[in-house]
Amino acid sequence: MNLLVAYDISTETKAGEKRLRRVARLCVAHGHRVQDSVFECRLDEVTFVEFVRQLSEVIHPIEDNLRIYRVSDFGPGKVVNLGKQVGVDYDAPMIL
Amino acid sequence: MNLLVAYDISTETKAGEKRLRRVARLCVAHGHRVQDSVFECRLDEVTFVEFVRQLSEVIHPIEDNLRIYRVSDFGPGKVVNLGKQVGVDYDAPMIL
Repeated sequence: MNLLVAYDISTETKAGEKRLRRVARLCVAHGHRVQDSVFECRLDEVTFVEFVRQLSEVIHPIEDNLRIYRVSDFGPGKVVNLGKQVGVDYDAPMIL
Repeated sequence: MNLLVAYDISTETKAGEKRLRRVARLCVAHGHRVQDSVFECRLDEVTFVEFVRQLSEVIHPIEDNLRIYRVSDFGPGKVVNLGKQVGVDYDAPMIL
């Protein structure tokens, strides 16, 4: 599944700053950051369900918002990118 | 087409702050804000092409980034929403 994660975390309190760090860490562990609070993730169903569970334990029910969209495709030509390049070339060979 | 627009505009300069306002105005005119810099848009092809043209005239090629994703569906049950409710019920009757 191609997923786009976008979040707005209230950082008016120390607790909010902590939540922001925890959400960012979770997203970094599951995908690729394309903007400050926007990540592209390619996950299978099981990993996706666990990812959402972990996120739901962090997100504040009133102060924060996090949304996950199913995206048709992340590949070249499928996502309009204006400005600096940020996307991942998922088809390029992975250099280990 | 269901489109998700997400942007990161550098606001370190007055010019950047102006670009942010112009991009936000364009997005408000074409869709629904779900987070500070994330919008859901339902557009036909012609409107979409013109929208991208207008955005490309504003976005700074080095300092800014704006991405547009094709989303499978915005409807209830298709977008995971954690935290405060922000989405639009596209199927609800529009009250004029």
